[in-house]
Amino acid sequence: MKKVLFATSALVMTAGVAAAEVAVSGDGRMGMVYDGNDVQFSSRARVKFTLTGESDAGLSFGAAFRVDQENYNANAYRSAARGTAGAVWISGTYGKLSMGDVVSASEAAIGDLYEIGYTEGTFAGDVEEISYLTGDGENLDQGPNILYEYTVNNISFYASASDGQDTSWFTTPGADVDDALNASSDDVAYSLAAKYDGGNFWAALGYAKHGDASELSLGAEAQFNQFSVKGIYVDYSDRFNGAAEWEYTAGLAAAYQADALTVKGFWRQDKYDLGAGAGNEKYDSFGIGADYDLGGGAVLAGGIIDTDYLDDTVADLGVKFKF
Amino acid sequence: MKKVLFATSALVMTAGVAAAEVAVSGDGRMGMVYDGNDVQFSSRARVKFTLTGESDAGLSFGAAFRVDQENYNANAYRSAARGTAGAVWISGTYGKLSMGDVVSASEAAIGDLYEIGYTEGTFAGDVEEISYLTGDGENLDQGPNILYEYTVNNISFYASASDGQDTSWFTTPGADVDDALNASSDDVAYSLAAKYDGGNFWAALGYAKHGDASELSLGAEAQFNQFSVKGIYVDYSDRFNGAAEWEYTAGLAAAYQADALTVKGFWRQDKYDLGAGAGNEKYDSFGIGADYDLGGGAVLAGGIIDTDYLDDTVADLGVKFKF
Amino acid sequence: MKKVLFATSALVMTAGVAAAEVAVSGDGRMGMVYDGNDVQFSSRARVKFTLTGESDAGLSFGAAFRVDQENYNANAYRSAARGTAGAVWISGTYGKLSMGDVVSASEAAIGDLYEIGYTEGTFAGDVEEISYLTGDGENLDQGPNILYEYTVNNISFYASASDGQDTSWFTTPGADVDDALNASSDDVAYSLAAKYDGGNFWAALGYAKHGDASELSLGAEAQFNQFSVKGIYVDYSDRFNGAAEWEYTAGLAAAYQADALTVKGFWRQDKYDLGAGAGNEKYDSFGIGADYDLGGGAVLAGGIIDTDYLDDTVADLGVKFKF
Repeated sequence: MKKVLFATSALVMTAGVAAAEVAVSGDGRMGMVYDGNDVQFSSRARVKFTLTGESDAGLSFGAAFRVDQENYNANAYRSAARGTAGAVWISGTYGKLSMGDVVSASEAAIGDLYEIGYTEGTFAGDVEEISYLTGDGENLDQGPNILYEYTVNNISFYASASDGQDTSWFTTPGADVDDALNASSDDVAYSLAAKYDGGNFWAALGYAKHGDASELSLGAEAQFNQFSVKGIYVDYSDRFNGAAEWEYTAGLAAAYQADALTVKGFWRQDKYDLGAGAGNEKYDSFGIGADYDLGGGAVLAGGIIDTDYLDDTVADLGVKFKF
Repeated sequence: MKKVLFATSALVMTAGVAAAEVAVSGDGRMGMVYDGNDVQFSSRARVKFTLTGESDAGLSFGAAFRVDQENYNANAYRSAARGTAGAVWISGTYGKLSMGDVVSASEAAIGDLYEIGYTEGTFAGDVEEISYLTGDGENLDQGPNILYEYTVNNISFYASASDGQDTSWFTTPGADVDDALNASSDDVAYSLAAKYDGGNFWAALGYAKHGDASELSLGAEAQFNQFSVKGIYVDYSDRFNGAAEWEYTAGLAAAYQADALTVKGFWRQDKYDLGAGAGNEKYDSFGIGADYDLGGGAVLAGGIIDTDYLDDTVADLGVKFKF
Repeated sequence: MKKVLFATSALVMTAGVAAAEVAVSGDGRMGMVYDGNDVQFSSRARVKFTLTGESDAGLSFGAAFRVDQENYNANAYRSAARGTAGAVWISGTYGKLSMGDVVSASEAAIGDLYEIGYTEGTFAGDVEEISYLTGDGENLDQGPNILYEYTVNNISFYASASDGQDTSWFTTPGADVDDALNASSDDVAYSLAAKYDGGNFWAALGYAKHGDASELSLGAEAQFNQFSVKGIYVDYSDRFNGAAEWEYTAGLAAAYQADALTVKGFWRQDKYDLGAGAGNEKYDSFGIGADYDLGGGAVLAGGIIDTDYLDDTVADLGVKFKF
């Protein structure tokens, strides 16, 4: 027998109940992806749990994860019950402290470029996402990460860190590689960021460090009537992938909204020093797409992305839903 | 702290909220199975999510999957978040379009024989289920399948297809075996069916094709007072399993209901050409069982099945629940 | 879109609906664990489903499992849909019968020592938990277990059993090792227990047997004003782990509650006969901790445990939540 859940909180509010709650929400999508060679069907359905409560002294607390993020036995690094997916938090007048698979301070302040298409960029490998050095799945070999956020007037401060220990205890994954001296899995991965919000624009600066590698990130976004524009520049130092060193990521995104229609685009460039006198290489990615809001949680969306990472032009078209 | 969900939609309706919703339902069962040698305990509990919404223009959309169908990391072919379990759909005056692990057009029109026992046939390997050539998990190496359904007056039309591409892109499983020429994993698997519903009886015809293999299916069901009877005949061509060729499946099921009691039975025959002059072989399966409705979602049920597939007679007895 | 679920059953009650329901609840925790060498972050979030219904004749039935207990493809022995995690039950005037990953009769009657710390003992390997011989995951190679509970006046009776069959049928895990004569996986694992509840104290006696191994358990608990004290003694016979034979586990736990504060401690000793003239060995474990109830489902908790099993002193400190 089906259970209908309330879509509004009105009745709960009037009842004056301050008790802890579990909200169940979901999303879905269906459509077609052109992968550069063929057109393929692509769909998905997901459910998310959002747990919220409040202590007697007014401290808020909560947690959130999706069903597909709970892979207790299949993947210890994608399990909310192990602290390696989703997050738990407490928040009050002193700010908000989260623990789990949280984003880094830099990512919390700056974020990514605009998502395009009904698969929200996945059809092109999510090239709209900035590859921040720490957090957001990067350091889960050390178990849960923490993120602290505090806002005073127009300024927000962010700090995030791993615990610098890859050794496991009973419910925390982590292979014991302590024997490997100076292994990055034994180095605290941390990040600090600040953001100024001026109403119709914001600007943010972030820093992150993990072992020898470091990251300096700058981001800003502005809205003028129906236009939005966002720029991100991330400079990496000593971030190696084999012999190749990632030097920087630069990105620009813009959007125009007219009633139900939103047109979005982005450009991104990544530069690598190939090492050993092999010179440099630049990867450019371009994307353009449109969303049409059908109301009630349904959006018709499509996008085209050309990226040097795939060495191809790919596209998607479909509908996405929020429940 | 437990949350009690509403079992009726009355209050939601009066509130006039048309917003998207997530309904949580479940099922369970407990009892004993005689596997031909021993009696064993068998139980299970499952939870299902049904997501529904409606666009401003009155287009319905939704999705559904169970918790045990989300194995994101353990099994890419049994994951609603990858489109290989559960389904997403949109529907309106033009019909209903579903994508995911959908049944084929033939199966949508004709279905299976009657389920027997508290494990609903599982205690005998689900021999009441017809092995349709396409859809319902058969073609998930190509990612999600689609199913289109449209009803006008007494006639329903069905069409289903895979995309004919086993190459994976970012969230679609599928090993790239393009090198294997004429591999069935690169052939579109499709099915077409039509059904006439005359009120207390229906008759349906289906066709399916995947590579060289094809399937022609016929089904009909009728109800006379407390009696129901259903017949299915499926003729396969070039459907090989090694050297053996599956020639046909024929099945007949009947049920009699008197108040809370339902008595059900089925017979099924499968014929195989063993190839290489080894002659033919027929597999017969018989089943009989009874359900007693205890009310409130609980049913006491038991069944006995004798099948050449197991070369044994097996039985179950227990209770099954709907929540 | 988030769905808010009702935290009270008041409205459901007034509606007089007796239909089956699915309740969604959850828990979370975040804090730090000192594992004897390093301090590490540890967090988790979990969601639990509780399914309940009632037949027309007033028979109650239900089921319960957590999202992280459904690992259908990753671990057949931790899957509610296979009967190897969570449980299904029916209950009425004749008692309650549960099937699935249930505890043994002994554990149902006696239970464990008091849990300490925000990770509820997990930071020290759950040494507060008694290792009962049967049930609670011990015999899942035989599929689901059963537990029967019946209370008349002050006395409760308990009986539990596995089915003595490790052979699998279609949805029950179990490797077929029938060839191994006298394998414990082919022996019924059963337990019987009785408990007398005198209001502010109870005493219980349990017995369990699996193959050659047997267990005799005694437990009692009493409350005096703000004090609670609990004692457990479990005597094992022929319970071997390689050459070593587990002889007994003795445990004592005490708690003192003053308003929101609860202080808890336990001591436990396990004795092993190392066999082959190697003599005996005793393992002692001590724990002390405190919980401070913040209200609304949040508890600040910390603990210190010194145990010979880890040959170390470990500690935790954090907050735990109920939603």
